[in-house]
Amino acid sequence: MTETSPLKPGDTIGILGSGQLGKMLSMAAAQLGLKTHIYCPDEGPAFDVCAAKTRAQYDDEAALVSFARSVDVITYEFENVPATTAAILARHHAVVPNADVLAITQDRLNEKTFLKNLSIPTAPFLAVDDAGSLARAVGQFGRPSILKTRRFGYDGKGQALIKEGTDLAVAFRSLGGHSTILEGFVPFAREVSVIAARGHDGSFRAYDVCENHHEHHILSQTILPARIKTTTQEHAISITQTIAKALNYVGIMTVEMFVVETKDLAGGVIEHLIVNEIAPRVHNSGHWTLDGAMTSQFEQHIRAICGWPLGSTERTGPIEMRNLIGSDVDQWPSLLAENGACLHLYGKSEARAGRKMGHVTFLRAKKDN
Amino acid sequence: MTETSPLKPGDTIGILGSGQLGKMLSMAAAQLGLKTHIYCPDEGPAFDVCAAKTRAQYDDEAALVSFARSVDVITYEFENVPATTAAILARHHAVVPNADVLAITQDRLNEKTFLKNLSIPTAPFLAVDDAGSLARAVGQFGRPSILKTRRFGYDGKGQALIKEGTDLAVAFRSLGGHSTILEGFVPFAREVSVIAARGHDGSFRAYDVCENHHEHHILSQTILPARIKTTTQEHAISITQTIAKALNYVGIMTVEMFVVETKDLAGGVIEHLIVNEIAPRVHNSGHWTLDGAMTSQFEQHIRAICGWPLGSTERTGPIEMRNLIGSDVDQWPSLLAENGACLHLYGKSEARAGRKMGHVTFLRAKKDN
Repeated sequence: MTETSPLKPGDTIGILGSGQLGKMLSMAAAQLGLKTHIYCPDEGPAFDVCAAKTRAQYDDEAALVSFARSVDVITYEFENVPATTAAILARHHAVVPNADVLAITQDRLNEKTFLKNLSIPTAPFLAVDDAGSLARAVGQFGRPSILKTRRFGYDGKGQALIKEGTDLAVAFRSLGGHSTILEGFVPFAREVSVIAARGHDGSFRAYDVCENHHEHHILSQTILPARIKTTTQEHAISITQTIAKALNYVGIMTVEMFVVETKDLAGGVIEHLIVNEIAPRVHNSGHWTLDGAMTSQFEQHIRAICGWPLGSTERTGPIEMRNLIGSDVDQWPSLLAENGACLHLYGKSEARAGRKMGHVTFLRAKKDN
Repeated sequence: MTETSPLKPGDTIGILGSGQLGKMLSMAAAQLGLKTHIYCPDEGPAFDVCAAKTRAQYDDEAALVSFARSVDVITYEFENVPATTAAILARHHAVVPNADVLAITQDRLNEKTFLKNLSIPTAPFLAVDDAGSLARAVGQFGRPSILKTRRFGYDGKGQALIKEGTDLAVAFRSLGGHSTILEGFVPFAREVSVIAARGHDGSFRAYDVCENHHEHHILSQTILPARIKTTTQEHAISITQTIAKALNYVGIMTVEMFVVETKDLAGGVIEHLIVNEIAPRVHNSGHWTLDGAMTSQFEQHIRAICGWPLGSTERTGPIEMRNLIGSDVDQWPSLLAENGACLHLYGKSEARAGRKMGHVTFLRAKKDN
């Protein structure tokens, strides 16, 4: 893409993944007069709002080539796109964000090493490939600490807490013998995220920092403004820009951070930022932008990958976004009846426990005439 | 529908018409977890954002029946749905708004007679079926006056201005010999519209009154707040509610009105409202609600026809909506770069003169934290 000209209205965006993020990306593209082609092995809500669809496996080279030929740029809704899939597609069209971004963000060890090389604070970490190296790492970081698979973790999956009394061999085996890393425990006061976009021309625009609350390792609530100092907000955005630039990133990027509080000599609070994770995509904690920002994260991502100017990230007011997980979605009738509640249902057929079924953004409109 | 229970997320909305209104209705339905099935004889942008599509003529009974069987409720993006089409569909599923609404709003004579029976002011009108009755009507209303086909008029099509020197026989023939009505000239100061929704339960919610500006008979600009008195706004909404109730209406209805100014004895301005037209559907002058209201007109229509509670119609601030007609759409790159401009491109392939290609809503976000 960097070497090609911007897309035009009427062109087609290829999207890997048919979940709610692909659905919302597809609708944002349609608003801007673009067509979308969704590629996914599984049925999903994005298939209901696209101009073309391909249901095929990610290693089906013939299907991938045919898909690539039908589109003008390719993006994805999830970071676990196999490297070989990305390589096949990249022979035909730019895959945005690029393959280097995928290689780094798919692997916790690569990601933390990348951040360390940028002098960006993370939890202390060590690669762990067997029970022996786990014992040495736990000796260094103490308990509690957290063992995580290097790859394919999300929403708390692929993690084991190492606390007093945890049998290390059992913990290691519980993650299936995959390559892992041990992370030292971070005694954080809050979790925040920065959603930001970077354009082909290096332009950069961040949304206000999001404060996130999790239940059972799944995002349950995002509120804005985040209850952290203005200087900390600015620092969080600056860290995000450093990461985006180092990756030569194009599109929406999300950086999850912990806020750790210490006291200064006078008893005042000092806020420190620790980067937890980079998501090379639109993010659940940015869903409020659909209703509470001048440009949604989905439109912003489409603008960026098309080589178009980024939109305003201005927020319209105070925000609370709540996820509807599993049977939470049964609240839809009362949420529909609530003034100021913007309801989004993803159209998934089955409300399994832990499944993200929708979200609702609460906002207060301000009339100014 | 009145006798059936409300729809559930996952159900399917059938929409007649594949234009930009159908597209925006389809995306609003998708946001609420509903599927859509678009039926249209012609390719159009709505086909790019729906779960299912049928391309068939409006008199193709087999296709209509198959379509009706695949959906849970049926609505339309344009009022010229043939009566026989509506009747075939209504045997299987509720068509909302109902067939009586179509019969009245498809025909200018029926519509004006309906309004007259409600004691709602309209331009003076007379049925004209030949050059002789035209001459008598012009004798009564004087010149200028406007001859309009009773059916299938929109954006100034099917109209002939009768001014000094106009040959009446030529004017009548120019409208193809169709049944027409002559309307007396209304010396209006402004054009406004009310977009409002009525639910199955009789609930009613109106958006703030829109002030509309036309060029070559096509809407070019809508601004809010309308520059009319608060009492006139309230009166306009009250007229709309009277109409909606009389039609036992369900869904979004638009009423276009003229504001005529006279002076009182003290020289103060008195504003009078004259109803020009009823559109039984979402409307171009309501497109600003996508970006500038708590609930868009499209979501509101979907809520109403599903039997769900109506959403808040609160406006977020001052609004200017501009249509992109024909080659106006070539401005898209500069509009994308403008802060506070929300761009909507319909995805039509060819920018013919007079064709609505997109719109842009300008708004100023108000941050309040």
